[in-house]
Amino acid sequence: MIFSAFLAPNGGEPMNLAVMMLIIFGSAKLLAELFERMRLPGVAGEILAGILIGPSVLGWISPSEFTTTMAELGVLFLLFKVGLEVDASELVKVGGTAAIVGTLGVIAPFVGGWGLFQLWGKGQTESIFLGTALTATSVGITAQVLASKGLLNRTASRIILGAAVIDDILALLLLGLVTSVAEGRLNWLELGLTALSAILFIAIVARWGGKTMGKLIPRLQAELRLGEAHFALAMILLFGLAAASTKVGVAAIIGAFLAGMALTEALPPRVHDLAHGVTELLVPFFLANIGLHFRVSIFADRQLLMLALLVVPVAMLTKVLGCGLGASRYGRTVAIRVGAGMIPRGEFCMVVAQTGLEMKAISPETYSLIVFMAITVAVLTPPLLKIVFRGVLANSGPEEERFRLG
Amino acid sequence: MIFSAFLAPNGGEPMNLAVMMLIIFGSAKLLAELFERMRLPGVAGEILAGILIGPSVLGWISPSEFTTTMAELGVLFLLFKVGLEVDASELVKVGGTAAIVGTLGVIAPFVGGWGLFQLWGKGQTESIFLGTALTATSVGITAQVLASKGLLNRTASRIILGAAVIDDILALLLLGLVTSVAEGRLNWLELGLTALSAILFIAIVARWGGKTMGKLIPRLQAELRLGEAHFALAMILLFGLAAASTKVGVAAIIGAFLAGMALTEALPPRVHDLAHGVTELLVPFFLANIGLHFRVSIFADRQLLMLALLVVPVAMLTKVLGCGLGASRYGRTVAIRVGAGMIPRGEFCMVVAQTGLEMKAISPETYSLIVFMAITVAVLTPPLLKIVFRGVLANSGPEEERFRLG
Repeated sequence: MIFSAFLAPNGGEPMNLAVMMLIIFGSAKLLAELFERMRLPGVAGEILAGILIGPSVLGWISPSEFTTTMAELGVLFLLFKVGLEVDASELVKVGGTAAIVGTLGVIAPFVGGWGLFQLWGKGQTESIFLGTALTATSVGITAQVLASKGLLNRTASRIILGAAVIDDILALLLLGLVTSVAEGRLNWLELGLTALSAILFIAIVARWGGKTMGKLIPRLQAELRLGEAHFALAMILLFGLAAASTKVGVAAIIGAFLAGMALTEALPPRVHDLAHGVTELLVPFFLANIGLHFRVSIFADRQLLMLALLVVPVAMLTKVLGCGLGASRYGRTVAIRVGAGMIPRGEFCMVVAQTGLEMKAISPETYSLIVFMAITVAVLTPPLLKIVFRGVLANSGPEEERFRLG
Repeated sequence: MIFSAFLAPNGGEPMNLAVMMLIIFGSAKLLAELFERMRLPGVAGEILAGILIGPSVLGWISPSEFTTTMAELGVLFLLFKVGLEVDASELVKVGGTAAIVGTLGVIAPFVGGWGLFQLWGKGQTESIFLGTALTATSVGITAQVLASKGLLNRTASRIILGAAVIDDILALLLLGLVTSVAEGRLNWLELGLTALSAILFIAIVARWGGKTMGKLIPRLQAELRLGEAHFALAMILLFGLAAASTKVGVAAIIGAFLAGMALTEALPPRVHDLAHGVTELLVPFFLANIGLHFRVSIFADRQLLMLALLVVPVAMLTKVLGCGLGASRYGRTVAIRVGAGMIPRGEFCMVVAQTGLEMKAISPETYSLIVFMAITVAVLTPPLLKIVFRGVLANSGPEEERFRLG
């Protein structure tokens, strides 16, 4: 890379790292600024920046191993930061509701997606795959909106975060079930063991992680001669729990979130700042990367476009209704906030779409439909969240001020 | 990546991102801690961690696009941080000496490397390539040692940083010259233009960058609605100047260093912390990546091993003598410190070795020789620096305490 401009002045070589960083980070921040000026959420601007610089519009950046890696690191650090800012004991208090929200929030979109494809005359397997693709919430986008507005410790936010963990386990199991059925080999024992190990892992870390770290970190910090030992220990826990999560079958971001929660009290404020710096650098890559996968080709086929315009409201409404119903005991305002916060889809969608395509269970059209849905819904959620949280944003009370804003 | 453990439980797929982060970051910090306990510099431990986890020993991690990207980002942020901590006006004061140090520090290793190969009976082209490979200092390792010990604002450190900029321009021109001669097409005009644009770019940014940013950043910060606007502006300047550097032909890290210097006074302390967090995360990847390129195969060929054991002292002594001589007017202590600080080689070596191999100007043996030299010298420099800076480390006076330590 270094000297590449000199050694190969006539192009052809892969794009310079600094140039890519500049384009992705710079365009995301530029659009975030423009959006904030139009009183729209910056998060939506950063996703649109990805569409703009991506293959469909300017063609400056294509999705690559580089953009994927930066995006994955970005969402890991985002959830780690959210974990750091969330009070674990408060999260436990809404645990029952979160479980109901997570469960209904998987059932409703599955039925909605499956039903839509059935009505449209698609086959059973394809309908089941669409249903599955609609199930899992990608909590990153909501988390970034809530964190940037200092809303992470509202009741609705806590329910969303708890429900996202439940939702991730259920969606994982559903995908396992669906792919086994599609492949004609269904192993209930394997599925049960996966479920059990995932639940045990999460329960143990959530229950004892904070206490253990509260004792362990100060003792280690006193022992270690390493510079910035606090930060190094935090990073090792973050990557360790993220790796362990994927081993037991749940998303790496769940581990990152648990690591953050376990460390909330063990880390001094300065280390929060150090981790926050990494998050600030990487989150734009997570958001822009969503937009990078947008393809205009979906607009070429009229039938497909009509179907796409139906899938988007189904994806949104089923989450709002399912999750909102689950949180209804907290009143209408909280229920709507929870429903809206659970709308975004992300990596899981792409995994289902990819798996379905590879197994030839879905057509390439359905694949692009799912990707289109995920991106559209990701762009629409931040403005929606801004609306449903309007009351709190207008007169933010002392509850917000207690917490360190993003 | 997410769900990969579930979808493909029997391996074969690329290694999970969180696992790679854990292995590289964790092993680097573990060895840094062990080294610090043995009163050796942690930096050398982090390079050795790369050798340990790399293909020659444990084989857990191979050099890949991922490790290269993380390493390049790491050294960019390292030099940015160094720039932030360095007083530009103080750097200008040692400018004359730095120019002499940089020049002699290119001439001496070139002559030494060329002479060694001539004595060993190698051909003219191969000798010239070895000489060229020995010229450029990779200031990252020295910078990390100095920063972690709070020594960046010693006279010797300022001379080293200034000389590293000069050295980079000269090495760039030398490589251009050597490759043109080897290809049989020598364009003096092109070389002259490259030199001129590189020097102009650096001079303009170094001279007016700080003043411009001092005016521009507070004004922009007041205007922008974006969250963490200071940090976003700093990152855009960092990537922008790094990209511009490669366009005019010098290393991206020179741009990163200039960006840091230009921003020293314009950024509030909190933004220094945010950037410092990124540096803390990424620098272990830069250091471990050096070790990853180590191959034991060099020990299989006795002839080659003997030559390797000669190249290493030549590489070290020629820098110490050349650079030390250049700084001799500041007395023996400073001269030795400057000489030792200029020893490390890095990316530039690899570029010369790669270019030479591709042009068939050097043999694969010479290629591994150069890589072996760069790694060995990188491991040996930190302990050497600790020795030559011993007096300051033992009784660090108020000069250190004025500056924010790493």
